[in-house]
Amino acid sequence: MRLAELSERSAVSTATIKYYLREGLLPPGRRITATQAEYDEEHLRRLRLVRALIQVGGVSVASARDVLAALDDDSLDHNKRLGTAVWALPHGQAPDEADPATRTARRRADTLLERLGWGYGPTPEGAPPPYGMLVTAIATLERLGYPCGVEDLEPYARALARLAIDDLDLVERYSDSPDEQVEAAVALTVLYEPVLLALRRLAQAQESRRRFGGK
Amino acid sequence: MRLAELSERSAVSTATIKYYLREGLLPPGRRITATQAEYDEEHLRRLRLVRALIQVGGVSVASARDVLAALDDDSLDHNKRLGTAVWALPHGQAPDEADPATRTARRRADTLLERLGWGYGPTPEGAPPPYGMLVTAIATLERLGYPCGVEDLEPYARALARLAIDDLDLVERYSDSPDEQVEAAVALTVLYEPVLLALRRLAQAQESRRRFGGK
Repeated sequence: MRLAELSERSAVSTATIKYYLREGLLPPGRRITATQAEYDEEHLRRLRLVRALIQVGGVSVASARDVLAALDDDSLDHNKRLGTAVWALPHGQAPDEADPATRTARRRADTLLERLGWGYGPTPEGAPPPYGMLVTAIATLERLGYPCGVEDLEPYARALARLAIDDLDLVERYSDSPDEQVEAAVALTVLYEPVLLALRRLAQAQESRRRFGGK
Repeated sequence: MRLAELSERSAVSTATIKYYLREGLLPPGRRITATQAEYDEEHLRRLRLVRALIQVGGVSVASARDVLAALDDDSLDHNKRLGTAVWALPHGQAPDEADPATRTARRRADTLLERLGWGYGPTPEGAPPPYGMLVTAIATLERLGYPCGVEDLEPYARALARLAIDDLDLVERYSDSPDEQVEAAVALTVLYEPVLLALRRLAQAQESRRRFGGK
């Protein structure tokens, strides 16, 4: 397909597509004349993913490039590619090691992960980025005096463990191809985040009405 | 307590506290001399909440003011105050009504909420803000060609319905006072979001290792 069709099918403007091409977020099309190139389904899929990362995930162009590099790294097995690609996503501020609340938070996170049997083991890169994100989040709760004990956190972790089964089922239903699965895993991680947060607020309203509601 | 102690106990700098006082996000202290004022536990609690909203929730000063106004609105019953305060939080971009994907998304969101029995009924203000957030998120998935059918979404909604019970239990364990419960509900909604997203990524890594893992 030509650039115009790629733009129409992806709902991304031709100017933005050209920008992504220049930035190396999309592989170049197959040149057919001096001014025209031909794009295929793989370009369309990749473009959708880039769009998901940048527009919904708030991922920078540089981080998007890291995510894509992990996706395309054929030296990794399927599980490692999935992990590496998701972990190349931004994970917010690293824990503030000067803060005593961080030490408390780290202890709680470790106890929690141990209880769940989610040992990630010693890796050359150290702890995975979402672990740092978790420690930062618990440290903030702790510093502000809100409940964040292991008992408070455990139901959330167990719920998300069950939901991860649905997450991966969705990825496997989406495609049989490992390449497409890795792309979908990253896109669905990012795109389902606002779905989860919106549903949580609606569910809370429902539960609040049940407990405290007038009508 | 004096300003210095309020700053120490909240881990918020005196300059930032003075800024919040000027912006009306904190009620003034009780003047004791021309240059000094006395603050109490209520200031400390309110300051923690403001911090949670602005620093973690990325809420603007103007939106934080709206959330606090809802918290302090004594004309509402407990359930309404909870809802109004959480709904004054930012909910991202409103659905793009010119986009056909929005119509599809709205139909799916309605079917989903009906199946769950989460009717919010016709309200003078129209649909609650998290409903708009949900529609926008589904429309994006739809536009980018990723799975987002009612069957795909339902397990997430059911998981969050169960988690809302834990959310509200946490609020009730935190305090018996309705005022403090409303404050905690807003703070915990915001502060547990990064906890959820981090745990989700860790849980996905775990499940991916189980399915596809080498070692």
